[in-house]
Amino acid sequence: MLLLKRCLPAWLQHYQSHWLAGDLTAGIVVTLLLLPQSLAYALLAGLPVQAGLYASVAPLLVYACSGRSPAQSVGPMALTSLLTAATLARFAQVGTPDYLLLAVWLALLSGLMLLAMGLARLGFVADLLSEPVLAAFTTASALLIVLSQLGPLAGLRFPGSSLPQWLAGFWQQLPHWQPTTLAVGLAALGWLLAVRRWGAQLLRRLGVPSLPSQLLLRGAPLLAMFVGMGLARGGLLLPVVGSVPAGLPVVALPHIALSQLADLALPAFFIALVNYVQSLSVAQLLAARRQESVDPDRELVALGLCNMAAGLAGGFPVAGGLSRSVVNADAGANSQLASLVTAGGMLLVMCTATGALASLPLPVLSATIIASLLGMLELRTLRRAWLAERADAVAWLLTFVLVLLLGVDSGIVAGVLVSLATLLWRSSRPHIAEVGRLPGSHHFRNRQRHAVETLPGVLLLRVDESLYFGNARQVRQALLERVALVAGTQQLVLIMSAVNRVDTTALSMLENLDQALQQAGVTLHLAEIKGPVADILQRAGLGLRFDGRVHLSTQAAWQSLAGLPDYHI
Amino acid sequence: MLLLKRCLPAWLQHYQSHWLAGDLTAGIVVTLLLLPQSLAYALLAGLPVQAGLYASVAPLLVYACSGRSPAQSVGPMALTSLLTAATLARFAQVGTPDYLLLAVWLALLSGLMLLAMGLARLGFVADLLSEPVLAAFTTASALLIVLSQLGPLAGLRFPGSSLPQWLAGFWQQLPHWQPTTLAVGLAALGWLLAVRRWGAQLLRRLGVPSLPSQLLLRGAPLLAMFVGMGLARGGLLLPVVGSVPAGLPVVALPHIALSQLADLALPAFFIALVNYVQSLSVAQLLAARRQESVDPDRELVALGLCNMAAGLAGGFPVAGGLSRSVVNADAGANSQLASLVTAGGMLLVMCTATGALASLPLPVLSATIIASLLGMLELRTLRRAWLAERADAVAWLLTFVLVLLLGVDSGIVAGVLVSLATLLWRSSRPHIAEVGRLPGSHHFRNRQRHAVETLPGVLLLRVDESLYFGNARQVRQALLERVALVAGTQQLVLIMSAVNRVDTTALSMLENLDQALQQAGVTLHLAEIKGPVADILQRAGLGLRFDGRVHLSTQAAWQSLAGLPDYHI
Repeated sequence: MLLLKRCLPAWLQHYQSHWLAGDLTAGIVVTLLLLPQSLAYALLAGLPVQAGLYASVAPLLVYACSGRSPAQSVGPMALTSLLTAATLARFAQVGTPDYLLLAVWLALLSGLMLLAMGLARLGFVADLLSEPVLAAFTTASALLIVLSQLGPLAGLRFPGSSLPQWLAGFWQQLPHWQPTTLAVGLAALGWLLAVRRWGAQLLRRLGVPSLPSQLLLRGAPLLAMFVGMGLARGGLLLPVVGSVPAGLPVVALPHIALSQLADLALPAFFIALVNYVQSLSVAQLLAARRQESVDPDRELVALGLCNMAAGLAGGFPVAGGLSRSVVNADAGANSQLASLVTAGGMLLVMCTATGALASLPLPVLSATIIASLLGMLELRTLRRAWLAERADAVAWLLTFVLVLLLGVDSGIVAGVLVSLATLLWRSSRPHIAEVGRLPGSHHFRNRQRHAVETLPGVLLLRVDESLYFGNARQVRQALLERVALVAGTQQLVLIMSAVNRVDTTALSMLENLDQALQQAGVTLHLAEIKGPVADILQRAGLGLRFDGRVHLSTQAAWQSLAGLPDYHI
Repeated sequence: MLLLKRCLPAWLQHYQSHWLAGDLTAGIVVTLLLLPQSLAYALLAGLPVQAGLYASVAPLLVYACSGRSPAQSVGPMALTSLLTAATLARFAQVGTPDYLLLAVWLALLSGLMLLAMGLARLGFVADLLSEPVLAAFTTASALLIVLSQLGPLAGLRFPGSSLPQWLAGFWQQLPHWQPTTLAVGLAALGWLLAVRRWGAQLLRRLGVPSLPSQLLLRGAPLLAMFVGMGLARGGLLLPVVGSVPAGLPVVALPHIALSQLADLALPAFFIALVNYVQSLSVAQLLAARRQESVDPDRELVALGLCNMAAGLAGGFPVAGGLSRSVVNADAGANSQLASLVTAGGMLLVMCTATGALASLPLPVLSATIIASLLGMLELRTLRRAWLAERADAVAWLLTFVLVLLLGVDSGIVAGVLVSLATLLWRSSRPHIAEVGRLPGSHHFRNRQRHAVETLPGVLLLRVDESLYFGNARQVRQALLERVALVAGTQQLVLIMSAVNRVDTTALSMLENLDQALQQAGVTLHLAEIKGPVADILQRAGLGLRFDGRVHLSTQAAWQSLAGLPDYHI
């Protein structure tokens, strides 16, 4: 009995009976939301709708057992589906068995990578993407998804995971648009947007209590689906989903060639990265509301297991979704039981209602996707970056354009590179200040901003940046130029109070600089070296080289060079 | 007349007659060295030997007009040739017209990119590669080149731009080795190594004067070539170069499909990067000897023009070579006239001696390559990194293994990523010190290292790193944990003396941290914010948020929180 209890997840061991009502409500509300989304996102990924059902149930069950975030709702996501479609389009035709096989393995592989990263405690990979780059990536992807659904909304079907591709397909297919389909699609879209805009307000004014009000609001897409199905069955000619196999998925590990697996490795890594960053930010948002914190490595493991489960069940890559998780939390989810209720609801549909889904019109699903994605188009981060730090705004714009032009899959690689390039760019030309002493004090300040005293023949320069391969060359050049600029300089004191780190490239630079200065008849002194930096200098053998020219503080260097008695600290 | 003078390069305007002897000698010595190298490196790139001649003459002429480094010798380089071969192998078969076309366009494209980067003053891209990563890349590439020449040394010919490829080809081809060829190859190699090891010593002991001694030493490969040609003409069965067209290349811009050009774009960028980094370090080395400095952007432009010239002349990508340039300088080159002399020598060979080159044995050329590459195999940087900064040593090893496994072309991409990953890794978990006041002073020091006084309920934390997307999440988490650890904390003072920069990700983090602390009943203060950081906080609207909680110095924060009178500075 005790053993059994040990095996249960933590939330179940400490379950409190008063959580039950909230969990049940939230579970049902999320089911209403998830059902249309799972079908729509499967189509977005280029897969049959049942793949969306499989990719919903398995992760819900697995996350409930392995995840720590009570309200997190892991399942099919728009961005992930688009990434899946863009990746698979390079290796297989939509609709072929190979396409299905690769989708399954993409989930398995990215799941395995997430699991491995979690076990190796590599949670920090989430920080490969800066906030502006991530925001630009999300906005551009949302725009691409909205565009990609404009076709199906009018009864057209063409690929388009980048803007040029989409434009080409759009112009080619435009003449074939179907008025009936477009009318139904626009009606559904209008309905969804109207409910979102005025629904809550109206129901409140009508005095509808909270629970039925929530069910009505979250059920709006489902209602659109029902009306659509009714129209299709009533004889209106609309493109529909078609037959959906009933029942549970067969858990299987399909055979794949090693070369195909190698093809998927890099895309799987980037999908894993995007899914992890998304899920982690959701988990952190939810945790902040409850004043808890998140263990990133633990989240990595749980998300990895979810993706592996999605793959084994015949689904595709999944992630923690922001909107669904927030709905879950707002509807009262207190524990992972809510997810189990949702999983139960989805299972019920799979076992009983797949026949009805066959007549579900595609334009209604497209409307669902468009409505849920419009909120992701945001320019706030760009505006803020523009005000605060222009380089980040440039990174935003660059990533945005690259994602639109190259598509989401190459776009995410470009995004990582843009993140890192801004980092390099920013630290590549560090601020170097000439300082002097505030008269009568031991404080040293920028000569350009304060009235300070100096020593003849002595130049005091402060480098405001860590020294590393990205700026070593420039710092060397800049220091030599500054020395050449001040005639009669015999001593250069390099104040290293802002140098938090040095790497081996910087060590070579310091040696090289010392040599170059010696040849020019200038002696190089180092002052205010931080502990970790001093350790590295020592280990690299530079301690000996600079023996007698290293000063604890700028004041100590000053006293020594002025010929005054030694000064400590 | 004045106009004509204006058009001349600077070195020619200020030419001094006493430079002439050195320039002539150096020009002839380098010709002796360049002739075998140009042929050998063309073969290494998978091209006919005449491409090596074309790629030698054109850049020499162009650099003499556009370059600033007097002794720099731009032309075919082993590493560049291997990169060219590895890139082209992916798009065309060796020996096909397509292969030639792509080689020419690779030079043109990378030349254009270098030119564009130079005009846009993007010299800082050279800093994408850290010293250990560059050293590992060079050593691994040299090893791959040496391996790739072991086959031709024994009369075998198989591709192998990565270790697995090479091993597969080697085992397959091994039974076909040719004893005569191997004997000639080993004899040539032995001769070259012996000359290098003992030649200078012997000639000095024999009392040979400097100039003939140098000609003899640098002419050793040429002598091996003559002996080899004699053997081949004498009837010894050896694989030889075969007919070489005589005369000057036809300057042409061959037509290429846009899709092929797109394929070459990324490889061309990385080849440009490697060539630029090589050439720049050569130029800097030479400049340091003469106590001059280098304008990186100017070097970019010159190297870009050289590569475009090499492409137009039917050659392949070129770079400034370390060994040739040093020989040039040591032989007395005082100006770019030395390069013009070398160009003249090469032109002479092209117009008169191509008939003789036809019988040049391939194993002798392989021996030339191996002998000149052995010096590039070095482990010094690894040893030093291992002692000073373990992460750099890991980067070295990782790059080395990746280049061997993936080949030079993917290896250089992996190298750039490893460089940047070490940077991210190093700053991702910054040191956070709890500080206190040295009793009776205004100095604040790490509590763990000094006996300091503290204020009840006040926590003083100093973050020793700039704040940016790579560490924002971890810093937030670490600060919250530190606050939770010290019971009764009501005020947290974040000392930002080591924060040289913040980006927008870090701004969001600070806001978010402030909120989280507020909810936990802790007030966040900021102290010692640097000028540029304060500006960004202000522009982002955080100045208002933290109004009254920003302190100029830690001492000012201390006085304010202790209820003492205001303190300035």
